[in-house]
Amino acid sequence: MGRALLAAVAAAPAFSLVGGFGRPEKVVDGLIHVDAALRAADVVVDFTTGQASAALAEKCAAMGRPAMVIGATGFEDTHLARIAEAARKIAIVRSGNFSLGVNMLVGLVERAARSFPAEVWDIEVHEAHHRRKIDAPSGTALMLGEAAASGRGVPLAPVERRGRDGIIGERALGEIGFSVLRGGGIIGEHSVVFAADEEILTLSHSALDRGMFARGALTAARWVSDHEPGEYDMQDVLGLSPISR
Amino acid sequence: MGRALLAAVAAAPAFSLVGGFGRPEKVVDGLIHVDAALRAADVVVDFTTGQASAALAEKCAAMGRPAMVIGATGFEDTHLARIAEAARKIAIVRSGNFSLGVNMLVGLVERAARSFPAEVWDIEVHEAHHRRKIDAPSGTALMLGEAAASGRGVPLAPVERRGRDGIIGERALGEIGFSVLRGGGIIGEHSVVFAADEEILTLSHSALDRGMFARGALTAARWVSDHEPGEYDMQDVLGLSPISR
Amino acid sequence: MGRALLAAVAAAPAFSLVGGFGRPEKVVDGLIHVDAALRAADVVVDFTTGQASAALAEKCAAMGRPAMVIGATGFEDTHLARIAEAARKIAIVRSGNFSLGVNMLVGLVERAARSFPAEVWDIEVHEAHHRRKIDAPSGTALMLGEAAASGRGVPLAPVERRGRDGIIGERALGEIGFSVLRGGGIIGEHSVVFAADEEILTLSHSALDRGMFARGALTAARWVSDHEPGEYDMQDVLGLSPISR
Amino acid sequence: MGRALLAAVAAAPAFSLVGGFGRPEKVVDGLIHVDAALRAADVVVDFTTGQASAALAEKCAAMGRPAMVIGATGFEDTHLARIAEAARKIAIVRSGNFSLGVNMLVGLVERAARSFPAEVWDIEVHEAHHRRKIDAPSGTALMLGEAAASGRGVPLAPVERRGRDGIIGERALGEIGFSVLRGGGIIGEHSVVFAADEEILTLSHSALDRGMFARGALTAARWVSDHEPGEYDMQDVLGLSPISR
Repeated sequence: MGRALLAAVAAAPAFSLVGGFGRPEKVVDGLIHVDAALRAADVVVDFTTGQASAALAEKCAAMGRPAMVIGATGFEDTHLARIAEAARKIAIVRSGNFSLGVNMLVGLVERAARSFPAEVWDIEVHEAHHRRKIDAPSGTALMLGEAAASGRGVPLAPVERRGRDGIIGERALGEIGFSVLRGGGIIGEHSVVFAADEEILTLSHSALDRGMFARGALTAARWVSDHEPGEYDMQDVLGLSPISR
Repeated sequence: MGRALLAAVAAAPAFSLVGGFGRPEKVVDGLIHVDAALRAADVVVDFTTGQASAALAEKCAAMGRPAMVIGATGFEDTHLARIAEAARKIAIVRSGNFSLGVNMLVGLVERAARSFPAEVWDIEVHEAHHRRKIDAPSGTALMLGEAAASGRGVPLAPVERRGRDGIIGERALGEIGFSVLRGGGIIGEHSVVFAADEEILTLSHSALDRGMFARGALTAARWVSDHEPGEYDMQDVLGLSPISR
Repeated sequence: MGRALLAAVAAAPAFSLVGGFGRPEKVVDGLIHVDAALRAADVVVDFTTGQASAALAEKCAAMGRPAMVIGATGFEDTHLARIAEAARKIAIVRSGNFSLGVNMLVGLVERAARSFPAEVWDIEVHEAHHRRKIDAPSGTALMLGEAAASGRGVPLAPVERRGRDGIIGERALGEIGFSVLRGGGIIGEHSVVFAADEEILTLSHSALDRGMFARGALTAARWVSDHEPGEYDMQDVLGLSPISR
Repeated sequence: MGRALLAAVAAAPAFSLVGGFGRPEKVVDGLIHVDAALRAADVVVDFTTGQASAALAEKCAAMGRPAMVIGATGFEDTHLARIAEAARKIAIVRSGNFSLGVNMLVGLVERAARSFPAEVWDIEVHEAHHRRKIDAPSGTALMLGEAAASGRGVPLAPVERRGRDGIIGERALGEIGFSVLRGGGIIGEHSVVFAADEEILTLSHSALDRGMFARGALTAARWVSDHEPGEYDMQDVLGLSPISR
């Protein structure tokens, strides 16, 4: 991801690189070059770990700058609390998926699920990935399921339906189904299907190239650079947050 | 359409039929049974012609009731002006397509086009219909193209690109392309593709049964029955109008 | 199905109806009108049960006519043996699915699976049906899986993979995966995906109207009427049997 | 393409590289290292031009070896005649597209078109490519249209229908339609749709990576290395030629 970000920054005229650091333990050590980089930067883009992200966020908050884009994974609740606290001083965008298209899809799915009553519209999430992916459904598929459930005002867990096989009976009202395809080199396909008796609405995303994650992080960086302190996600970056919908 | 509406009303417990009239010239004659039906109704659903719709809207406005759902086609500007005037006294939903899914699609397309810059995301509209359809692209495809253009804040005409064939050169920035498939008994398929270098977002609708138009009109009828006077469209019914987005 | 066949016969100039009988127990009773109908017919189309089909096949074989199209379900081995014996005297087409498109799809899947090595091409079967379907995967999806396995020269059971959910590990070589979507009024969608690292071949069928089964049975009827005694399936009718490929 | 081939050879244990030459004019000069490479090789893979391919084929024919895989473009009739003559001495596979999936698709389309009467099944070819592609429909889309026409026993030109726009009237019987989508970084998508009144069969190919062309050329190389002299295409390599179907 670091390399992909460097390539994306190099290709984007609106950005210039003022420094980079790859080993998270150095951040918490407070090495001078990190401080120098942070002082020079408008935004720091962080794809480390929950632990390192939390430490870096506190450091930036203490300095009062720069804004942050956090794409790390593996957060514990304490990490999240520290980042939330830091976001009172600096603007932070945090997301598990920086693809612009996936995030737009999440917003649109939530939007459609809010208007389409569960008595009429069945919701199904279908995803397809390469043969080396070991978990199912994908994290993004679950994020889409969460968005659909959220649009309906219910939690996902009680209504999700996975791995249909055998005599499954009629589909339950309000169920959100998941189906999974694995094969070849498919980078990542996600579809959310809203199926009524007489019509079907399908909202889909297809990844052509993994570079899209880096580009999405830069879009977030540009956006966060002129926003007030606070914690944001990609829905905010895309103008899809409930408040603005 | 009249028959489809009768079937839909009969199947919907929330509705009861208080009267119907099929020949538009009777409406303007002011036959007593029309008046009686209008007095008894909360909503009148009108799939006649622009001329007859305008006359009926004036009649309802004069009576102060009922609310209207208008799915007529063939409006001249004077008809639209008379309906707009009537809408100062009664609530009116008017739309060229009462499919809930298509109208949701229109709203989502406008929404995505608003956030996705034309420098990055190419927009294409693809539609497929049965072999007997004589025009291309479909009216709904054009409505989707209008929604995409509107989201970008431009008129459709200068950017639309139809009928690609031969040495067409590279795709122009900002272009909205249309492609058309005709075959067999396809009821109606519409897709709007947002294509970036590294990812693709596709928003699609597929019609399974023509009865969906009647169901959509009844959804509009229920919605309009408790709204203030004014002229609305299906975007309002679905809560997708710009003001609420 | 009887009604759908009558409608299809009425609409097909090449056919005329010489008689029909709906209650299978009458067939084995040998009622005179059944005999008269069979004597007058070039082909009898039978959508009864395994038991009744076997009896009717024996009757036709004894008379030396007419040819048969059998779309019954619920065969026991003894029924199949009796039909096979009858097929030494009369031509019989028997199939579990008379959709021309599905049967073509079965043939094409077998064909592709025969040429595409399992080391390179992963095979997945995806199906989608309405919310009232109680079993998964569909019988047709399994038939497609069988065709894929047959093309590879292996039985389906040891390689099929259903209901993926959780930490499933990397996809096993040679696996044939199934995924299932349920929602709304989807009549029936089937896709077979051949996925390599760098490209994907997808063979799909979509049902628009249940009338297709009746039309397929009539196509079989026309074909069987001028063929030698023997037992055939829809692959033969479509010219897709291995011998002719 | 040369680089892609070198990478593919390096990754394929069954192959070893004995030499390569990139500038076609050198071939006709008869440089000694070319001769040495040809003597050492079982197969030569040639992605040059029609002119250079013809010269190289004559050279190989005169030497009696090696077999050839020709992926060059820009053939004049005289080039083709010279290659055909050379194929009396050596085995040659020549193709305009070495994707295994596309070639399988061509074979399956021809196969389906042969069995599906034009009175019932409408055929449409849809393709999508990146925004920089300057011609439409793609060469592969036209190849698929040719396969469909060939399956029906008619030439493509009189039945093809491109660029539908405006009041086009009902679809003509037997027409083969083309539609074109351009956007973003789509590598290449092709679908052939067989649409009847009540069902649809869709045969599709999607490219994930341009490396597939090199892999297909190596598959052809392995196949041609143990075949008799003659001119073959990828349909033969895949066992899809009419004679074997």
